[in-house]
Amino acid sequence: MCRWMAWSGQPLLIEELLFKPRHGLVDQSLHSRMGVDTTNGDGFGLGWYGSGGGPAVYHSVSPAWGDANLRDLAAHIESPLFIAHVRATTGTAIQQTNCHPFRHGRWLFVHNGVIAGFQAMRRDLTLAVDPELFQGIAGSTDSEVIFHLALTFGLDADPVRAMERAIGFIEATADRHGIDNAVQASLGLTDGERLWAFRYSTERKSRTLFISHDAAAIRRLHPENPRLQRLHDEDRVVVSEPLADLAGVWDEIPETSVLVVQPGADEQREFRPS
Amino acid sequence: MCRWMAWSGQPLLIEELLFKPRHGLVDQSLHSRMGVDTTNGDGFGLGWYGSGGGPAVYHSVSPAWGDANLRDLAAHIESPLFIAHVRATTGTAIQQTNCHPFRHGRWLFVHNGVIAGFQAMRRDLTLAVDPELFQGIAGSTDSEVIFHLALTFGLDADPVRAMERAIGFIEATADRHGIDNAVQASLGLTDGERLWAFRYSTERKSRTLFISHDAAAIRRLHPENPRLQRLHDEDRVVVSEPLADLAGVWDEIPETSVLVVQPGADEQREFRPS
Amino acid sequence: MCRWMAWSGQPLLIEELLFKPRHGLVDQSLHSRMGVDTTNGDGFGLGWYGSGGGPAVYHSVSPAWGDANLRDLAAHIESPLFIAHVRATTGTAIQQTNCHPFRHGRWLFVHNGVIAGFQAMRRDLTLAVDPELFQGIAGSTDSEVIFHLALTFGLDADPVRAMERAIGFIEATADRHGIDNAVQASLGLTDGERLWAFRYSTERKSRTLFISHDAAAIRRLHPENPRLQRLHDEDRVVVSEPLADLAGVWDEIPETSVLVVQPGADEQREFRPS
Amino acid sequence: MCRWMAWSGQPLLIEELLFKPRHGLVDQSLHSRMGVDTTNGDGFGLGWYGSGGGPAVYHSVSPAWGDANLRDLAAHIESPLFIAHVRATTGTAIQQTNCHPFRHGRWLFVHNGVIAGFQAMRRDLTLAVDPELFQGIAGSTDSEVIFHLALTFGLDADPVRAMERAIGFIEATADRHGIDNAVQASLGLTDGERLWAFRYSTERKSRTLFISHDAAAIRRLHPENPRLQRLHDEDRVVVSEPLADLAGVWDEIPETSVLVVQPGADEQREFRPS
Repeated sequence: MCRWMAWSGQPLLIEELLFKPRHGLVDQSLHSRMGVDTTNGDGFGLGWYGSGGGPAVYHSVSPAWGDANLRDLAAHIESPLFIAHVRATTGTAIQQTNCHPFRHGRWLFVHNGVIAGFQAMRRDLTLAVDPELFQGIAGSTDSEVIFHLALTFGLDADPVRAMERAIGFIEATADRHGIDNAVQASLGLTDGERLWAFRYSTERKSRTLFISHDAAAIRRLHPENPRLQRLHDEDRVVVSEPLADLAGVWDEIPETSVLVVQPGADEQREFRPS
Repeated sequence: MCRWMAWSGQPLLIEELLFKPRHGLVDQSLHSRMGVDTTNGDGFGLGWYGSGGGPAVYHSVSPAWGDANLRDLAAHIESPLFIAHVRATTGTAIQQTNCHPFRHGRWLFVHNGVIAGFQAMRRDLTLAVDPELFQGIAGSTDSEVIFHLALTFGLDADPVRAMERAIGFIEATADRHGIDNAVQASLGLTDGERLWAFRYSTERKSRTLFISHDAAAIRRLHPENPRLQRLHDEDRVVVSEPLADLAGVWDEIPETSVLVVQPGADEQREFRPS
Repeated sequence: MCRWMAWSGQPLLIEELLFKPRHGLVDQSLHSRMGVDTTNGDGFGLGWYGSGGGPAVYHSVSPAWGDANLRDLAAHIESPLFIAHVRATTGTAIQQTNCHPFRHGRWLFVHNGVIAGFQAMRRDLTLAVDPELFQGIAGSTDSEVIFHLALTFGLDADPVRAMERAIGFIEATADRHGIDNAVQASLGLTDGERLWAFRYSTERKSRTLFISHDAAAIRRLHPENPRLQRLHDEDRVVVSEPLADLAGVWDEIPETSVLVVQPGADEQREFRPS
Repeated sequence: MCRWMAWSGQPLLIEELLFKPRHGLVDQSLHSRMGVDTTNGDGFGLGWYGSGGGPAVYHSVSPAWGDANLRDLAAHIESPLFIAHVRATTGTAIQQTNCHPFRHGRWLFVHNGVIAGFQAMRRDLTLAVDPELFQGIAGSTDSEVIFHLALTFGLDADPVRAMERAIGFIEATADRHGIDNAVQASLGLTDGERLWAFRYSTERKSRTLFISHDAAAIRRLHPENPRLQRLHDEDRVVVSEPLADLAGVWDEIPETSVLVVQPGADEQREFRPS
């Protein structure tokens, strides 16, 4: 059910993370080790900040491993903040409007996981979306609805609170429908300045999510690796599964928590849907 | 804003209508003469009845004129009842779930036209869809919502009445939103036995729609044309624009009416949304 | 490097073999057990004989497991002789013209395997193709060149001999280029009447290939299985990997041999490239 | 048969030329005024120089007017030298490997026009390609063969001479095949430093090709247009058809000539195939 990764730090050619590391995201699209599905071949998406206004998005229904355009874009686009996602559908159509990241204004959003019983709840959840935002729903995934609920509940004002209310609302709706373990999620969210990584599931057995160690520590650990020696102190990578090139330098993001990657010290706190 | 055609009659290789006639539907996808847009290159769809259970559907986001699969399918699939559609989007995404015909159970549905102000009304219209049917909405077009409203209002029991209620509901909703001339439509509908062709617009200036003359008359008119000599008495073609090969043998379907093509005599009556 | 299957026998809805059996070809596209690659997601193709003139072909660059059109076509097309192929590219582009089966006149052809050092030999091999046939080469795969060499060497007159000459020519060219183990192949070929299944590799370690047992024996073995009870005496399935529903009823096609499925007794003989 | 445009000058968001001008290239894909075909919907390509090594290429088989990715890429990629192409196929497949620009090393190449009788000559022309370059031919168009012939004849050393020899070779081959008026071409070529625009046809009735006037003159002519006031002295646009926003500021590139856009004064001279 999907894999994703995000970069925040110095401007980087996207291929440096997407293609060059051993077991990078594109390799994970074919050979995921920790995901529910081995293959994540039902679409790809990349969002980045750089030239032009607001975030850019590239969505493809081709598997990431075979998309010639993706290879070229990744080799020629440089960005200080980007997020990529490979999809394994849980049933909804394979189409660009179902590819992550979803975008609204300056926001980008990705989701790995599933809302249990989504089809049964879809109408109720969609109705709770702000009517002004409703027409922005272009696809049919549970993920896009999570994003629009979070937007409805005040993403601009307080992103963590908004996401807690969105997830809480979904769990309450699931209760009414008699659906157990409604939410399974690792979520990535960014406004171009900060990056939020959420790890949460109703049953408290969430999809894996990792963040790279402090960059200074990585440089000390791997004096032999020129790529890692170029890391700046503020550089961070968030991944569903560790990249092999950075073996040993990953911290698991704890169950039921959210991590905020930002200028200065990052923050971590409990995630409390309500 | 789209062109469509339908065949009802003896089993026919689909290419006989789609590719072989001069100014057939595929040619209309590039060179429409009567449509609002010259080019209808934003997707293609074909639905047919034949082997296997229920209607089959083929949807493609490639323009019809360049789709190699379509050419092959049309040359190798034979059907007594099929309906094809070329799309010119009025803004929604180019994806298979937005391609016509839409299907539900034994029903196929196509639409040429537009609901004015659809984005503003989309939430209200979608909410009126039967909750059981709601989860069947896979795309984002106005056309798919018309179809689901008609299903909600009893398509199985009384197709014409259900469509009148669906269109009437849209017009009433538009009134509340202050939207003029809400509906512009030529609609095709079939259950595999009968074929309904609706021509209607709020402003009573509807898209063109034609039906081929009585087959016996066509045979008498064109003794030199072997293709036309093979027409059976019950064979009927409905088209947005006349095919050149059948010049002179078309009857315009009147403004604000519905025609029912069926075994025995066809029926025509006024279409009265309410 | 690809999986394929073929049916010869009573007219059958294609989904009966493609989707319905456990571990059918579409499942193999995601979870191959015996192939070099687990995932065969780089395109799909289906060729069949039925209505209309000559064989029909459907090619898709979407993975087979997620192609909504394929699911519909398979559920609504019935054929007495069809062949399907899922592709894992060995480097050439993912495009419809590189999807199998390749077609020429009444012939369909599929290949699982690879020509070692193909890029180095491509020019020499292509030059050996009959100039009249050269312009029929629309893609860039080794497989399409094998097919066109076989056509050049007399496929119409003597299919086995022509294939032996084609493979022999490739091996001789490889020798000149200093390339070892040039050919790795399981090949499927049909003219709409007979079906040839070749299993051959220069190193005599060929990809797996199986044919279903005598139908009468299968019916006796599985009295409980209604699907298998419907098998006719002449029905045959050829597969890269056994379908789970037919466990225990497969005969491996021997190394370095060709099997001819035909009305009456099938034939098998040694395959001798020269 | 295709339209193209190129930019050389100050770094520019690609959408400034592709989407924003009235009658820009994307509009020309739907409504060409001067081309042989009104619709150029059989694929799109964009090549640019910027971040990362060598030129980047984006190819799409979707019509340019409906490609959501293209709109996003154009709005977020900035480049001092880019070239874009909309395709109307003259018969070869609609696939990414047939989309322009073609790339080899630092070179990008586009073609509007056709080689008459290409299928008949394809083998002879392909054989003349340097064997080392042969394996770089990934598609099936006449245009890609022109490019590989020019590479064979010394594009790196003397681009104009190499192109003259390539076109001359094609005309000589056509003579042997009894084909008249073999070449119809407007060609764009760039190595990232300079941009060559060729206008040539065997019959001396070549496709239109225009270059924007001297930038200083444009600024004086349109004091009211802020976009044009931002033009730098070295900025140049080459187009198959004039953009409406620059009406009155286009110079037709003469029949049978080549123009070299480069730092300092541009050059123009006769084009003499041999």
